[in-house]
Amino acid sequence: MTPLPTLPPIITLTTDFGLVDEYVGVMKGVILSHAPTAQLVDISHTIPPQDILQGSRVIARAYPFFPRKSFHLIVVDPGVGSQRQLLALQSDDHTFVAPDNGLLSPLLTKAKFSMAYRIENLDILNGPISNTFHGRDIMAPVIAQLAMGLEISKLGRQVCLEDCVHVHQPMVQVTNGRIEGEVIAIDSFGNIQTSIHRNNLNNFSDLKNIEVTMDTLSIRGLNRSYGEKKTGEFLVLIDSSNHLEIAVNGGNAALSSQCFIGQRIIIKAKE
Amino acid sequence: MTPLPTLPPIITLTTDFGLVDEYVGVMKGVILSHAPTAQLVDISHTIPPQDILQGSRVIARAYPFFPRKSFHLIVVDPGVGSQRQLLALQSDDHTFVAPDNGLLSPLLTKAKFSMAYRIENLDILNGPISNTFHGRDIMAPVIAQLAMGLEISKLGRQVCLEDCVHVHQPMVQVTNGRIEGEVIAIDSFGNIQTSIHRNNLNNFSDLKNIEVTMDTLSIRGLNRSYGEKKTGEFLVLIDSSNHLEIAVNGGNAALSSQCFIGQRIIIKAKE
Amino acid sequence: MTPLPTLPPIITLTTDFGLVDEYVGVMKGVILSHAPTAQLVDISHTIPPQDILQGSRVIARAYPFFPRKSFHLIVVDPGVGSQRQLLALQSDDHTFVAPDNGLLSPLLTKAKFSMAYRIENLDILNGPISNTFHGRDIMAPVIAQLAMGLEISKLGRQVCLEDCVHVHQPMVQVTNGRIEGEVIAIDSFGNIQTSIHRNNLNNFSDLKNIEVTMDTLSIRGLNRSYGEKKTGEFLVLIDSSNHLEIAVNGGNAALSSQCFIGQRIIIKAKE
Repeated sequence: MTPLPTLPPIITLTTDFGLVDEYVGVMKGVILSHAPTAQLVDISHTIPPQDILQGSRVIARAYPFFPRKSFHLIVVDPGVGSQRQLLALQSDDHTFVAPDNGLLSPLLTKAKFSMAYRIENLDILNGPISNTFHGRDIMAPVIAQLAMGLEISKLGRQVCLEDCVHVHQPMVQVTNGRIEGEVIAIDSFGNIQTSIHRNNLNNFSDLKNIEVTMDTLSIRGLNRSYGEKKTGEFLVLIDSSNHLEIAVNGGNAALSSQCFIGQRIIIKAKE
Repeated sequence: MTPLPTLPPIITLTTDFGLVDEYVGVMKGVILSHAPTAQLVDISHTIPPQDILQGSRVIARAYPFFPRKSFHLIVVDPGVGSQRQLLALQSDDHTFVAPDNGLLSPLLTKAKFSMAYRIENLDILNGPISNTFHGRDIMAPVIAQLAMGLEISKLGRQVCLEDCVHVHQPMVQVTNGRIEGEVIAIDSFGNIQTSIHRNNLNNFSDLKNIEVTMDTLSIRGLNRSYGEKKTGEFLVLIDSSNHLEIAVNGGNAALSSQCFIGQRIIIKAKE
Repeated sequence: MTPLPTLPPIITLTTDFGLVDEYVGVMKGVILSHAPTAQLVDISHTIPPQDILQGSRVIARAYPFFPRKSFHLIVVDPGVGSQRQLLALQSDDHTFVAPDNGLLSPLLTKAKFSMAYRIENLDILNGPISNTFHGRDIMAPVIAQLAMGLEISKLGRQVCLEDCVHVHQPMVQVTNGRIEGEVIAIDSFGNIQTSIHRNNLNNFSDLKNIEVTMDTLSIRGLNRSYGEKKTGEFLVLIDSSNHLEIAVNGGNAALSSQCFIGQRIIIKAKE
C-alpha cells in the first residue's frame, strides 16, 4: 500500500537583511539543503536593521495566520558572535527559532509553549560556523532539521520561558474614562498603528463620541472603514490586527500628521 | 494503480502592500492554510498605494506568461469596507480574484471569460471578516479554495462583464499620418513605456523615417535594440510587451527627459 | 513498484529587474510553464541596473550554499539585442545560464565546469523572441528545460572557458608586510565589504597588532564579532564570506566613513 504523501513543511522567514544582498537567498539555500521540498514564505526582510522590537511585532502579528505545524525563522541579531543565546520554541501549533534577544518575547506570554530549548549542540550542524552570520550557519540548518523531524530536545538544555530575554512592550494605560497609548509603527500606506487594543475601548459606552488626540490632531468618533470619511480626512478605526489605527482616507496619515514612533495618543469621551 | 499526481496549483499575487509590513506574508499563510502545496508567485507588491490603473496594467501584462489553469489574486483596494463588490472571473485558461474597482478591466475585453461571479457567500470562509483587510479575510481564502477545486458558481451571483467597473485606459489616437499617445509608466531602468502599440505603427511605410516627439525631445527612427545607439543617446524601440518605448542606451530615459505619466507623445513621418 | 519520487528542481534567480515591475514574475511564469514543480528562490533582484560586476559577485557568493544539482539563472543584460552571446555552464554540482558578459567570470576559475555551451538552438524554445527581454524569451525557458532534464549539449556549440567574457576583478596586492585592497560593496547594514580575503592576512604574525587604514580612518586589530567594540565604534572583522569587513557596532560604517566603492584600504603591522 502506498503511504499517503506527507505535506512539505512550511518555513517562514523574517529578517532585517534587506532585499539587496544575497543573505536571504543564501539562508534559503541552506534550508533547502536540509529540507528540499520546504514551502518557503517571506514575511518581511525589511525590518529596520537591528530593530528587535519591530521584528518581534511583525512575527507576533503574522504567525497566527499560518497553518498548524508551521516553522518560523526570525533573524534580527545585533548580538551575533557575542554571548547571546539562540532559542527554539515549540507549541502544539508552531515552532520558532530566533536569537534569545527579545524577538520572541511577545509570544512568550501568548502562545502555550510546551518546549523551550537553547541551541547548543552545534555538532549536529556538520559545518563551519562564522562569527557574523549565525542565521546561515546555525539557525537556518536548525529550523530545516526541525521541519524534517528532528526532536527539539536534541538541540540543548531546556529553559524556562521566564529566563528568556524580554523586550519592553509598548505602553497602554487605561484609567477611569481615559486611555493613554502610543504610536508603535507606520505601515507603507502611512497608516498609524497604535498600542491601543480593541478591548481597551470596552469602557466607553458610545464609540461615536470618543475623542482621539495626538499632539494637535483631534479626531472624533470611531469609524468602520476608510470610505466613511471624505478623501483627505483623518479617521480612527480598528485595524486588521484589532488595534486602533489613525488613517487618512485616500492619503498618508503619518506624513500629514508628522507623527513619530512612540508619540502619545489619548482617548477620552467627548464632553 | 497509483493515480498520476496532480500538479500543485499556481497562485500569483499582485498588491500595493509593499515589502515592509507582514501583510503579504499573512495572505500567503491564509492561502497555504487552504492550499498547502500551492506554488506561490509574487508578481509585484509595490504597485503605488491605491493605484488601480497601474495594478490593472501589471496583471494584464503578466498573466499571459503563466501556465494554463493558473490563479491570480490582485489586491489594490482603496474601497475596502465600503459597498464595492468583489469579483471572481474564470476563463478556460486563468482564474482571477480582485475587488470590482477596475483592476480587472483591461482583461474584460481581452480574455474570454465564461464565468464572472460576485463573491457574496461569505459563510464558506469560516472565519471572522475585518473591515480593512479583505485581501486576507475574503480574497485569499477564496482564491485558495478555487485553486483546490471549489466551483466558482458557489461564490455568489453571476454578473455581466459590462456591469463590472471599468477604468479609463490610456489614450492612443491614430489619424492620417499621425499617432498621439501618452506615457503610461516608467520602469526601474528608467525606460518610458507608452500607450502606443506596435500595430498602431502599421500605417507608416518606413519606420526608419518616423519622428517621435515628447515635449522638446525629438527622436528619429525606430531601433531594434538598445545597443544600436551610442551610450547616453535616446532611442525608440518596441518593448517586450509590444509597445513603443523611449529609452537611453546605458542610461535612464525618464530622468534625462524629466517626463511624467500622462505626458503626450506624437509620432509623424519625418518630412 | 512505485518509483521514488524525484525532488523538484531548485532554480535560483538573480537579476537587476527591481521589485516594482512585473518582469521577475513574468520570468517565473515562463519557468513554471516548463517546470511546474520547480522550487524557485530569489537571490537578489536589486543588483544595480546593468552592474555586471556586482551581479557576478552576488551569484559567486550565493551559489555554494545551494544543494548540489541546483540551477541558477542570472540576468543583468545591458547588451540584450546586440551580438553578445548567451552561456550555459554545467559542473557536477551546479548549472548556470546567463549572458556571456562577465556575469559568470568569477566562477570560471573556481568551479570545475565540465560543460560550457553557447545558447544558439532557439528553435527548441517554441516561442517568439523579443529584442529587449531575452531573460523571459530565451534564458528562462532554457534554465527550466535544463532543470527538466534537457541535455546541455543540445543548446549549441561547446565553448572554451577562456573564450568567455571576463570582467575586472577587484584588486588585492600583498607585498612584504603590507596589503592593499579596495572597497567592493556596501551591504544594507552599511558594513563595508573589501577585496581582502582571510588568507591574505596569513603573513601577519599578530592580528591584534595590524592597522587598517582607509582615507583618514585608522583601526587597530582584528575583532571576532561586532560586540567586541563599544556601540558606535569602528571595527574590522572577517565577514561571513571570509573577507575583511569594516563595520560599526550598532551603526552604519559606510555612512560614518563616507567611503565609496573602489576606495583604497591598506593593512600594515602597527609599529
